[in-house]
Amino acid sequence: MRDLKAYSARSVPSRSEKARRGLRLAFSLETYLHNRAATIERALAQSVPEPSGLAARLFESMRYSLLAGGKRLRPVLALASCEAVGGKPGAALGLACALEMIHTYSLIHDDLPCMDDDDLRRGRATNHKVYGDALATLAGDALLTDAFKILARSRSRAPSAAAVLEVLAELAEASGSAGMVAGQVIDIESEGKELDSSQLEHLHARKTGALFVAAVRGGARLGGASPRELGRLTAYSRALGLAFQVIDDILDCEATTEQMGKRTQKDRALGKATYPSLMGLQQSKELARDLHSRALEALEAFDHRADPLRALASFVVERNL
Amino acid sequence: MRDLKAYSARSVPSRSEKARRGLRLAFSLETYLHNRAATIERALAQSVPEPSGLAARLFESMRYSLLAGGKRLRPVLALASCEAVGGKPGAALGLACALEMIHTYSLIHDDLPCMDDDDLRRGRATNHKVYGDALATLAGDALLTDAFKILARSRSRAPSAAAVLEVLAELAEASGSAGMVAGQVIDIESEGKELDSSQLEHLHARKTGALFVAAVRGGARLGGASPRELGRLTAYSRALGLAFQVIDDILDCEATTEQMGKRTQKDRALGKATYPSLMGLQQSKELARDLHSRALEALEAFDHRADPLRALASFVVERNL
Repeated sequence: MRDLKAYSARSVPSRSEKARRGLRLAFSLETYLHNRAATIERALAQSVPEPSGLAARLFESMRYSLLAGGKRLRPVLALASCEAVGGKPGAALGLACALEMIHTYSLIHDDLPCMDDDDLRRGRATNHKVYGDALATLAGDALLTDAFKILARSRSRAPSAAAVLEVLAELAEASGSAGMVAGQVIDIESEGKELDSSQLEHLHARKTGALFVAAVRGGARLGGASPRELGRLTAYSRALGLAFQVIDDILDCEATTEQMGKRTQKDRALGKATYPSLMGLQQSKELARDLHSRALEALEAFDHRADPLRALASFVVERNL
Repeated sequence: MRDLKAYSARSVPSRSEKARRGLRLAFSLETYLHNRAATIERALAQSVPEPSGLAARLFESMRYSLLAGGKRLRPVLALASCEAVGGKPGAALGLACALEMIHTYSLIHDDLPCMDDDDLRRGRATNHKVYGDALATLAGDALLTDAFKILARSRSRAPSAAAVLEVLAELAEASGSAGMVAGQVIDIESEGKELDSSQLEHLHARKTGALFVAAVRGGARLGGASPRELGRLTAYSRALGLAFQVIDDILDCEATTEQMGKRTQKDRALGKATYPSLMGLQQSKELARDLHSRALEALEAFDHRADPLRALASFVVERNL
């Protein structure tokens, strides 16, 4: 939760009334964010067995990447969305863990030599640099699989088994061949090719956006959202997911490896289409601010219980602007 | 279904009254097995999108391995188990597809250069030899993820959402860090080491057994099994799963690459512990026959609707004895 706390504490000038509103709320929400992140860390630590027995190195390898910190953005979004519609955060805790496990598996596999071949992640050696390619592949496989087990077993605090099943189906759809994996394939296949802005949006809606949408919609469903609330939160999460990617492209272009804890400037080196390469840096920042406004607008009908979601939107968009 | 049909048609002498009974039933069940396999093939073909769009090569790669034939043993077991307790096979069809998708993902990842580095599977080039390591890794990831989506979306023909959720949790548990992936890690980590028979059983209960148990228990649960029926079918599936592995070890030792459609004799080359290396060929065959008897005994309280399960036990054990 280091990153979110750092955000809450520092003073970044905001660019519009709405952004300023989000920022002010974030300050008052420091405790909220801190508590939720701590809950998630505890639950994640219990989600993977302690290393012992003949498969001890598998559990070690899973824990190495899962418990390496990180922003925990997707799980916090799930809890905040659950609470925005009046649910208790515990109802979405299984989903929160599943989201972070799926996100972590995708990072482990993306870093493999046969994919992006990265040595550094979250400020330390990538999984395969420590455990080897075979164990890293298997640790990713196990995190992905266990994620669905943990969500399926989180039924007791959910409104109904049917709700959990629908949340799980949407999470799997967002992560698989119609979502995140498709996005990764499109990303690889389009290296060195020109993409227009609609193709780039198509890519990112799958590669990163789908999991944001699954986090927010899933959290809301487990909190007992009405269809209308679900619709509004879907709009919020789509804007937020795209904003996240636009900002990621900007950071890859502007930040140093040291600041990010992972290799930067690699998109250009690989000839990958990004928002800055497509529309320039200034217009990319403008787009991120516009998406931020859209995310906040989608929350207008919600009361103060959606303040964490508002603060999270500001965090995502303003982490570098 | 080539393999199962071939089994039904040929005449192998059986070694005991129980084995003979299983074999006789198999002959009369040729149509059953053929029909169920055809149903599964059709459902699998609909489980993965036709190649189109920017991620077309992902879908191609998934279909290449998923629709490559194979015995379809796990899905047929799920349908047969569903029917053994009086359910309609359609209730377990989502589970059947999920099982084969998970089995296929595990083969694709096991064949990768960083794992077993195999070139040949089901008589043709392995996935990564055709599509490259990155796409093979991602096709495996997508098959695994989509498996849970398809099972979660198969609710309409199941007894209840709660039943599907429990089946899904057991399937994920059988496939992840407590099951198949752990088995694969133990297998890799114990290369060149001596394992005793209890460690070898521990390994195989995870690597192959767990998915057999999930197939049979899941099919039964979706067919509306009573707790007592579920217990008996669990005993059946444990014996069957271990028998399958013992036979696999024997085949790896005795059969040629041409007969198996995959590289054989590799266990010894890799210094892997196997049943023949641990107890000799004759005693391994004796163990397989003993497990076969135990599997059939577990079915004694079931009527003729369990005949397909009896025939499948005979198929698994007698394919080379």
